[in-house]
Amino acid sequence: MGFSIYELGDVSLQHGEVLHQARVAYKTHGALNSAASNAILFPTWFTGSHSDVEWIIAPGRPLDPSKYFIVVVNIFGNGYSSSPSNTKARDGKPFPYLSLLDNVVLQRRLLREHLGVKKLQLVVGRSMGAQIAFQWGSYFADEVNALLALEGSARTSPHNYAFLATMKMALQSVATEDPAIAARVGLKRMRIIADSWGFSQAWYREKGYQKLGFNSLEDFLERSLPDKIGHPEDFLCQIATWQRADISDNDRFKGDLTAALGAITARAIVMPSETDMYFPPEDNRIEIASMPNAELRVMPTVWGHRAGSPGTDPADTAFFEDAIRELLSGKWTR
Amino acid sequence: MGFSIYELGDVSLQHGEVLHQARVAYKTHGALNSAASNAILFPTWFTGSHSDVEWIIAPGRPLDPSKYFIVVVNIFGNGYSSSPSNTKARDGKPFPYLSLLDNVVLQRRLLREHLGVKKLQLVVGRSMGAQIAFQWGSYFADEVNALLALEGSARTSPHNYAFLATMKMALQSVATEDPAIAARVGLKRMRIIADSWGFSQAWYREKGYQKLGFNSLEDFLERSLPDKIGHPEDFLCQIATWQRADISDNDRFKGDLTAALGAITARAIVMPSETDMYFPPEDNRIEIASMPNAELRVMPTVWGHRAGSPGTDPADTAFFEDAIRELLSGKWTR
Repeated sequence: MGFSIYELGDVSLQHGEVLHQARVAYKTHGALNSAASNAILFPTWFTGSHSDVEWIIAPGRPLDPSKYFIVVVNIFGNGYSSSPSNTKARDGKPFPYLSLLDNVVLQRRLLREHLGVKKLQLVVGRSMGAQIAFQWGSYFADEVNALLALEGSARTSPHNYAFLATMKMALQSVATEDPAIAARVGLKRMRIIADSWGFSQAWYREKGYQKLGFNSLEDFLERSLPDKIGHPEDFLCQIATWQRADISDNDRFKGDLTAALGAITARAIVMPSETDMYFPPEDNRIEIASMPNAELRVMPTVWGHRAGSPGTDPADTAFFEDAIRELLSGKWTR
Repeated sequence: MGFSIYELGDVSLQHGEVLHQARVAYKTHGALNSAASNAILFPTWFTGSHSDVEWIIAPGRPLDPSKYFIVVVNIFGNGYSSSPSNTKARDGKPFPYLSLLDNVVLQRRLLREHLGVKKLQLVVGRSMGAQIAFQWGSYFADEVNALLALEGSARTSPHNYAFLATMKMALQSVATEDPAIAARVGLKRMRIIADSWGFSQAWYREKGYQKLGFNSLEDFLERSLPDKIGHPEDFLCQIATWQRADISDNDRFKGDLTAALGAITARAIVMPSETDMYFPPEDNRIEIASMPNAELRVMPTVWGHRAGSPGTDPADTAFFEDAIRELLSGKWTR
């Protein structure tokens, strides 16, 4: 149930700000082999943390800790790695904006400085984690053998940006001085928006909420929050990263997304959910046209952006795991 | 620029409540012919009013006031017909819930008692107005010759309900005693949600907001409100009608949607927008399977739920108008 912290010291970020006493929270499963060739990186996603992926890491499954050294790394802002909620303000400055590339560069420091990993057999991510996988494959192309991007894009689309603007609005809508109430009310408002987008029209039509244990749509929409909820400022920090996510937003690619995608030489499976309204398949279809070694593999599902998560459709999980298995079956050629 | 009010007195509603001093606001274009056979009903939609459809009513266009008697009727709750904002509370009771059928029954009283119309050559509606058109065609099947439902469904889908729950949340999120501020802030919050849903992912991808005159996505999302804005309680009233919209929710059909759809004998064109996320085509595809004389005609467009509105794509408007023309070209056979 535990996790580890790697302290990075004061870090200069991509856009000139400084993150003081930066820390990356992570958890490893399995061990690095003597050739240091069996490492897999699995970054987390919006509102997620290292514990949310443990269900898929087990002996006999594709992410098998008896074979692979699996590093689950928490994205910045998620409350475990450096986040507004666990970082003291300095000189009255707000917590800085962290880009996709900031996440990747600091994850890389953890891997190289601390874990002895210089090449990744696979980077696998979902949602924002998929965006980070794209960033890895593009910026550090020679260090990534294979890439699996589930329900995420290389650049946040204008539509996805608009959706996130409504999530921000919900979090910022709460007028109270009580931080605990602010957190609960803000999350409740944000969650109803996330629920309206996160599952598909077909899922709602088929009363998918019954499969999650709710008798009625109203019960599902009004359900209780978990006991432990995140900090609104942390959610806003992650949303900032997501809204501006763009693997070409750096000195090397200077906004040329085609070039940034073209740099991804890793064998890649880009896997949108057929019914995802955050990241519709068409966005990925456009992206893979510029990727030299990528395949678009659309997950057939009504579970929208939630497809492949625990507690949803086992067929979706199997579809995801089959792709992981396939990518890991290739020779370590780079 | 004016409009008319028809006073209905105290009205018993479908679910037992009373609407005191009910009024229907409407506007007519053209004149009823001697056979009383040229009447067209055009109900308004969520946030709309009689003036919002005038752009499509003109000599030489399909809705030609030199040929037809066109009655544009404001739905309840829109601020013109009886609404929370224009109705005094009685005995401390809140403004009542008005169903689709309440709207239709009271529109029918206006037509029969005041305008001399007993049969409608066409009921045409968009969005909630399309839902009202479905209700007309089902409950008063013998009085409707043809029906055109643009971007609306016979029953609000669970997904559409969830979307509307987020709109309610936005309107109700404002904590202020100042009604003017509450109205502006609530509307701003609601609008950003409506914008995120109202246009399609493809529209955002193609920077459709530039066609609306905005340089950037941020400008579009943050744009000013109009000078005249609606009352939050009126929006909530309309949302209540929309959330519970169901043409089978009445004593005749008792929740049997298949039967309620089967009763629609009018020649019907059901016209979803290909990219509408409020009312996706699949919802209509399921509905027309139970309608004996209906055609599904999907509007090919990226404009989502806004397709066919003024200022969007003229091709969509033409697609809509062609269908109106086609329905009006049929003989008056019933």
